[in-house]
Amino acid sequence: MALSDLTVADCWAYRPDLTVPEDLHAFWERTLGAAPAAAATYEPVDTGLTQIRTFSVTVPGFGGEPVHGWLHLPATATGPLACVVEYLGYGRGRGLPHEKLFWASAGFAHLIMDTRGQGWSAAPGSTADAHRYPAGTVPGFLTRGVTSPEDFYYRRLITDAVRFAQAAQEHPAVDPDRVVVTGISQGGGLSLAVAALFPGVAAVMPDVPFLCDFPRAVRVATEGPYGEVAEYLALHRDQSGEVFRTLSYVDAAVLAPGATAPALFSVAMMDRICPPSTCFAAYHRYGGDKDVRVYEFNDHEGGEAHQQLEQLAWLHKLFGR
Amino acid sequence: MALSDLTVADCWAYRPDLTVPEDLHAFWERTLGAAPAAAATYEPVDTGLTQIRTFSVTVPGFGGEPVHGWLHLPATATGPLACVVEYLGYGRGRGLPHEKLFWASAGFAHLIMDTRGQGWSAAPGSTADAHRYPAGTVPGFLTRGVTSPEDFYYRRLITDAVRFAQAAQEHPAVDPDRVVVTGISQGGGLSLAVAALFPGVAAVMPDVPFLCDFPRAVRVATEGPYGEVAEYLALHRDQSGEVFRTLSYVDAAVLAPGATAPALFSVAMMDRICPPSTCFAAYHRYGGDKDVRVYEFNDHEGGEAHQQLEQLAWLHKLFGR
Amino acid sequence: MALSDLTVADCWAYRPDLTVPEDLHAFWERTLGAAPAAAATYEPVDTGLTQIRTFSVTVPGFGGEPVHGWLHLPATATGPLACVVEYLGYGRGRGLPHEKLFWASAGFAHLIMDTRGQGWSAAPGSTADAHRYPAGTVPGFLTRGVTSPEDFYYRRLITDAVRFAQAAQEHPAVDPDRVVVTGISQGGGLSLAVAALFPGVAAVMPDVPFLCDFPRAVRVATEGPYGEVAEYLALHRDQSGEVFRTLSYVDAAVLAPGATAPALFSVAMMDRICPPSTCFAAYHRYGGDKDVRVYEFNDHEGGEAHQQLEQLAWLHKLFGR
Amino acid sequence: MALSDLTVADCWAYRPDLTVPEDLHAFWERTLGAAPAAAATYEPVDTGLTQIRTFSVTVPGFGGEPVHGWLHLPATATGPLACVVEYLGYGRGRGLPHEKLFWASAGFAHLIMDTRGQGWSAAPGSTADAHRYPAGTVPGFLTRGVTSPEDFYYRRLITDAVRFAQAAQEHPAVDPDRVVVTGISQGGGLSLAVAALFPGVAAVMPDVPFLCDFPRAVRVATEGPYGEVAEYLALHRDQSGEVFRTLSYVDAAVLAPGATAPALFSVAMMDRICPPSTCFAAYHRYGGDKDVRVYEFNDHEGGEAHQQLEQLAWLHKLFGR
Amino acid sequence: MALSDLTVADCWAYRPDLTVPEDLHAFWERTLGAAPAAAATYEPVDTGLTQIRTFSVTVPGFGGEPVHGWLHLPATATGPLACVVEYLGYGRGRGLPHEKLFWASAGFAHLIMDTRGQGWSAAPGSTADAHRYPAGTVPGFLTRGVTSPEDFYYRRLITDAVRFAQAAQEHPAVDPDRVVVTGISQGGGLSLAVAALFPGVAAVMPDVPFLCDFPRAVRVATEGPYGEVAEYLALHRDQSGEVFRTLSYVDAAVLAPGATAPALFSVAMMDRICPPSTCFAAYHRYGGDKDVRVYEFNDHEGGEAHQQLEQLAWLHKLFGR
Amino acid sequence: MALSDLTVADCWAYRPDLTVPEDLHAFWERTLGAAPAAAATYEPVDTGLTQIRTFSVTVPGFGGEPVHGWLHLPATATGPLACVVEYLGYGRGRGLPHEKLFWASAGFAHLIMDTRGQGWSAAPGSTADAHRYPAGTVPGFLTRGVTSPEDFYYRRLITDAVRFAQAAQEHPAVDPDRVVVTGISQGGGLSLAVAALFPGVAAVMPDVPFLCDFPRAVRVATEGPYGEVAEYLALHRDQSGEVFRTLSYVDAAVLAPGATAPALFSVAMMDRICPPSTCFAAYHRYGGDKDVRVYEFNDHEGGEAHQQLEQLAWLHKLFGR
Repeated sequence: MALSDLTVADCWAYRPDLTVPEDLHAFWERTLGAAPAAAATYEPVDTGLTQIRTFSVTVPGFGGEPVHGWLHLPATATGPLACVVEYLGYGRGRGLPHEKLFWASAGFAHLIMDTRGQGWSAAPGSTADAHRYPAGTVPGFLTRGVTSPEDFYYRRLITDAVRFAQAAQEHPAVDPDRVVVTGISQGGGLSLAVAALFPGVAAVMPDVPFLCDFPRAVRVATEGPYGEVAEYLALHRDQSGEVFRTLSYVDAAVLAPGATAPALFSVAMMDRICPPSTCFAAYHRYGGDKDVRVYEFNDHEGGEAHQQLEQLAWLHKLFGR
Repeated sequence: MALSDLTVADCWAYRPDLTVPEDLHAFWERTLGAAPAAAATYEPVDTGLTQIRTFSVTVPGFGGEPVHGWLHLPATATGPLACVVEYLGYGRGRGLPHEKLFWASAGFAHLIMDTRGQGWSAAPGSTADAHRYPAGTVPGFLTRGVTSPEDFYYRRLITDAVRFAQAAQEHPAVDPDRVVVTGISQGGGLSLAVAALFPGVAAVMPDVPFLCDFPRAVRVATEGPYGEVAEYLALHRDQSGEVFRTLSYVDAAVLAPGATAPALFSVAMMDRICPPSTCFAAYHRYGGDKDVRVYEFNDHEGGEAHQQLEQLAWLHKLFGR
Repeated sequence: MALSDLTVADCWAYRPDLTVPEDLHAFWERTLGAAPAAAATYEPVDTGLTQIRTFSVTVPGFGGEPVHGWLHLPATATGPLACVVEYLGYGRGRGLPHEKLFWASAGFAHLIMDTRGQGWSAAPGSTADAHRYPAGTVPGFLTRGVTSPEDFYYRRLITDAVRFAQAAQEHPAVDPDRVVVTGISQGGGLSLAVAALFPGVAAVMPDVPFLCDFPRAVRVATEGPYGEVAEYLALHRDQSGEVFRTLSYVDAAVLAPGATAPALFSVAMMDRICPPSTCFAAYHRYGGDKDVRVYEFNDHEGGEAHQQLEQLAWLHKLFGR
Repeated sequence: MALSDLTVADCWAYRPDLTVPEDLHAFWERTLGAAPAAAATYEPVDTGLTQIRTFSVTVPGFGGEPVHGWLHLPATATGPLACVVEYLGYGRGRGLPHEKLFWASAGFAHLIMDTRGQGWSAAPGSTADAHRYPAGTVPGFLTRGVTSPEDFYYRRLITDAVRFAQAAQEHPAVDPDRVVVTGISQGGGLSLAVAALFPGVAAVMPDVPFLCDFPRAVRVATEGPYGEVAEYLALHRDQSGEVFRTLSYVDAAVLAPGATAPALFSVAMMDRICPPSTCFAAYHRYGGDKDVRVYEFNDHEGGEAHQQLEQLAWLHKLFGR
Repeated sequence: MALSDLTVADCWAYRPDLTVPEDLHAFWERTLGAAPAAAATYEPVDTGLTQIRTFSVTVPGFGGEPVHGWLHLPATATGPLACVVEYLGYGRGRGLPHEKLFWASAGFAHLIMDTRGQGWSAAPGSTADAHRYPAGTVPGFLTRGVTSPEDFYYRRLITDAVRFAQAAQEHPAVDPDRVVVTGISQGGGLSLAVAALFPGVAAVMPDVPFLCDFPRAVRVATEGPYGEVAEYLALHRDQSGEVFRTLSYVDAAVLAPGATAPALFSVAMMDRICPPSTCFAAYHRYGGDKDVRVYEFNDHEGGEAHQQLEQLAWLHKLFGR
Repeated sequence: MALSDLTVADCWAYRPDLTVPEDLHAFWERTLGAAPAAAATYEPVDTGLTQIRTFSVTVPGFGGEPVHGWLHLPATATGPLACVVEYLGYGRGRGLPHEKLFWASAGFAHLIMDTRGQGWSAAPGSTADAHRYPAGTVPGFLTRGVTSPEDFYYRRLITDAVRFAQAAQEHPAVDPDRVVVTGISQGGGLSLAVAALFPGVAAVMPDVPFLCDFPRAVRVATEGPYGEVAEYLALHRDQSGEVFRTLSYVDAAVLAPGATAPALFSVAMMDRICPPSTCFAAYHRYGGDKDVRVYEFNDHEGGEAHQQLEQLAWLHKLFGR
């Protein structure tokens, strides 16, 4: 394992000149503007766990389509809870209901969003993404509709993510002033997008975020899904203009200046999947108060359980324990 | 490069006990029974070529959905022509119109079918596969709807393939008694399925066919798309029964006994993607006259240009040159 | 991913002829016979969790040396609890105290044993293995003292594992008749050894167990730590007799006939690290009631969260929920 | 896939200081000066194709030795034709006569040169290179005689290439003012050398050219035959001076200033075999009018069929369609 | 590292049915029959060593062509010495004169034969192989002239090897009754061939011999030069008959029954380059007294320094120390 | 193979700003200050060699612990000899006594130090390192005690190395004014450390030295043991300060300014294990007269036998032949 991107010093100095689409705000206002078709629903699930109560969640996402998830509550909770809304890494679905127990064990409400259409690696999912998309999509999601911002998969997924944050705020067990969004990799990129598009969040904790600074990421990432874009453009040799234009609408580094909530980032310097320079691009442009934990010798696994403790301490300080 | 499947001698002796669904015929009769919604259309294309005339083809495929392709005719052709219908390998689309010139240069009509939804590797395509499918599909096509024969991707693709063979037969420049189906890998599996389901074909030439003997292929292929099924079942640990049941409806080795046209197979003994034993499973069960060219030291590239000459000679003999 | 060991059918039929050292019982009686030097100690830890109480554990292990671990108790538990004693996979240490929350969340006491000297991958540890061992040890633990049963690392580690099961039985919050041992890979092999050497356990749940059928494992495993033995013997070409003799003292398949507690195994058919045949060798020889979950398309990850649910259901049935 | 050489911007700015041997012109004048020993011969071949007439070609190459090839003519051609002379990529031979049909199908004469001694990968050949060369050649051709410009393999191969361009000009079906040289990789390097050494060519179309800027290429190419030179120098540690001196006589970037015909280059930015900087070195130094198609997300496959269309359009424009 | 060929038990039982060319003896008699054109020459070399005297050797090999080598003599030797003639592994040349000091340090004359044309890996050489061979040779030596026994490279190399053994016998410092041939890999195959073709050798010590049982080796070796033959036949799909016929003339397992000198083999059970079954094929067929050291956990490195001691002890016993 | 670190020009200019611990001298004075507990012992060994006499050596090393080795003397030596003290590469032990014959064959005394605890790759050893070290050591030696200079493995190993140089000086057959230290990789790093810490050495010849410029090496080495440190810090995310502090006490580039003996370095520009920039860091800081052989196209094998001749010539010049 060795550095395959910029050094720490160069990352601190890296300020890419990203193209912001003129109609970025209009695009997202239009996309998010419609009122939800229906309310979120919560079905209790018998997980066999005694310390945590779990619900199968359905939130109307993009186009009002049902997006599933899990809600975990500490079994003994009373009064409104701070809520951690978690978005998942690329390939994962919401998995089995007993898999992610940290935040509820720590006394938080914990709302996990399934990722539409995904769920083939690490954990299965149960949310379809039944949208038409043209031939030639590279297997995966990065190029699903990538020639048009309207049709692009991540437009739908970011909308879902905003809806989950909104649903969290409206849940009776949750204190609406303490809704936090977080996630690792794709989940980190989504949480940044939500922070930019939904001012209601109290904090954001993106870990080794994906979906940042596409023009550089597609050229320097040596592993992982950014390569889908490179693979697509290797075959569709004349579409690079429209592809990068589409990507700019969902690029978390492009969206980041619009965010105001306090943020705790994490970045890994030997990350071959989400190169650290691209995470720093989002960090440097982030609009709110911010801090970052840098893991100098980690690949894309980043801070793992170590970072969970950093996040717990940071939230305890932010909210007062 | 070394053997990674059975030896030649063991392949000649290999006779797997494949499960044939009771309603196999009914399933395909029902699927193929509906009359086509519309006729095929042919638009001339300016390729810059002077010796070959090319048309962009649209054939109503499964559900009447438009499936594209190319038709090449020798520039100087007169009178009805023998026609080679070609299905493509996994990942390819129909590509650019000037890429496959052999059969038309040899005086044949040559009809190439785009593969719905594919076209991300080697050659782009232009045919969408706009069907709903559940979450959890492994990137690719092998598990798209794999828990139900009705919803499975290959039900649609095989239907498209039959429609192309029928369209060839109806084209005014083509002699309907000399329609041949062929293809490499996925194209080979499709040509076998067409031979089994559409008695109108005069001959079939499957090369290193994919889609054969799934129960073994999924367990022994060390490279390539059969692994998508294994990857799916690694996560969806309790679905193996229904998955293999679905696969049996499109398994070319299951369908092969129903074919009657003469066949020229090719098999490669060091094929890690379509293990030779699985190709031989289809060969042994094939219902018509048959012959096979065995390439002992080739991987999945098989016979390549060498096999083209074998095919040309075999067709010249079959049809009288 | 493909099979790299025997098929399922061949695994069910596989019965290796393993050499059992004549003095096996005497060896272990002597090793385990000494009374513990001191009692286990339990220090409460502030993990920030509210639903689970956690203690840092120290149990006098082999030679009375301090072996650390974690004890998790459900925050609201009253009355004696069934206790799951967990041993860890190769390379892991006990990690951070908030990492493994499943069993306590499900209402069990959960005792996790640190692995002496290990803790360099996935999770750090805090227990040293300060024993002399000769030059030439292949980096890792499989050949640490492997030329003598007395000096072999796994003699010490199995002793530690027995001590933890005993400590669990003695803890005031635990029902001594419901102490279960479990673990994945190395943890699975240790739990089998404990079941054979300590009759006090009520059940054993070994997942994809390591340390089974060394004579075959060392020759067929294509990945993972069994290769350390092959690497050692590649250099120390004349020591194969004494090495396999030493290994036979800690081979869980050799020890397995001595066990009587009911067992729930899991085995993965595409496991390249702990080949399924070697796990089945232990299963077939296991002395008590037994059942096995076979994951046909998984590598060494085995059943993961899916298997946790199988285990929870099996324990609920065994103990009455 | 990611960048492994310079960025596009850096490639546009890259101007290496290449050493030009003082006697470069004398060397090539002497080498090419002798009159051909005999005329090219053309034997008709029965390929089974009806739209294209094919001839097996023999041209007296270096030392008058017979070098084979194919000539394709459109079946219906009349009057003098523009002729595309194609040199092949490293490892290929001329292959079977029906493999490359594009240019003749487009109405051009198409002359393909076999590569002496090569023909072990992708396509077999039939031209021997029966020259003595010393022990220690790294398997392949890059170090065959590399310690002396006189004995070096590429001196012979470039001579063959010039002879084929001359033979094209003299063929009765060919318009001598419209002879174009082209090729991919090694073929691209050869076409550049021919353009520099034989003023009679009307145009040159080098794709992802090999044989360019050896001093850099040998140090930065991570895949492919440039590595043969590094491997040679790793063993023959004191020959680096004479080796790079020899290479400078055949380096297409060294020769390029001498060319005057219009040129259409292609370069791939993720090319690991022929690093883009080295192709740009030749481009920047090229003496004639020039243009370049840059494929930003392709490895050594470059523009493929896409580039064929670029070339056809460029030639139509150059020659008037 | 794991077994990739037969088990030890299966190797002991393996008896392939190898085709022996009818004219095998005539072929070799004709090849070796001619009297040497000239005598061997020995030039002293200043290596800087004080304990060993070294000579640069030239022996007239096949066709009387000069083949180089080294002769080492112990500095203090008097009286006729036992002589070890060593042939080298594939890719090596004779290297620098001070590289192989074991046998002379042990009091033997040590004659090392350079390998014509080789010397690009591990150690350079200085002997050319200036023979014509057709296009299409896979880089390397296994297919150089492989379509004809007369032209095949190994006909020349085996002849060289016999000439070196003869030269050893004639050297004044050597006891002609104690000439031993040995070598690793290719050197082992050559030493077997010499033992079969030159009755004058007193002993043969082949280590992990190459050039044995080609029909199996080409199909099962997963690494190394046997793959050149598979690669050749993958392209030249119709030459398998003549290729295996040619190989049978130089196959050490085919030649082995003709040998009578005592032999000490070594075989490595995890050898991926020279699969153990193919070495055992030669062992089982060997005509003289024989013994074998089996290294169960080694790849192609085999016994290394350990085997040197076995050889030294075996020779001391054979010759009386 | 390609450059993966700096170019030659950049290496010549590279001057890292290394942190020198304030108590560096005190640390080493204290460590080395104690008088040896006992004298070195020499047991004759029967290797079967006649030209070289060999002794099994035991030198009291760190803490007076026995460290083994070999001493080779030319069989005919008389009078005091120059002595080459050799330290070994990472993973090697002293091996069998007949493996390294060059220096004694050249008339030197040759003392080889076994490496405590190592000896699992390439050559076995016989010296244990029976020191306590905490859990979490990454398999290997780079992190054994790495959180404290007192406990760090390399403190002990460097002490051993100094003791061997001292023992050489005291041996009756050795001229104490001509003791040279050398070694490859780890052996090169050790020889630099000895040159810095023990002024008695007459010369030092470090080849592709390891243990140099840790802060850079740990971040840029793509292969080999420097990665152990990165792996350790990937898990122990908060220990980077103390780890690099410990490493600075044994960093050969930190120690190098203290050396005064003439030095002949070798560096390989494509070295992925000991990146050339890190070797040059030591070279540039080296305190004595110095020269360097740069191998531009070699990986970590460096100059091999070629460099041996350079060293022999350099010593002959230094000492007068």
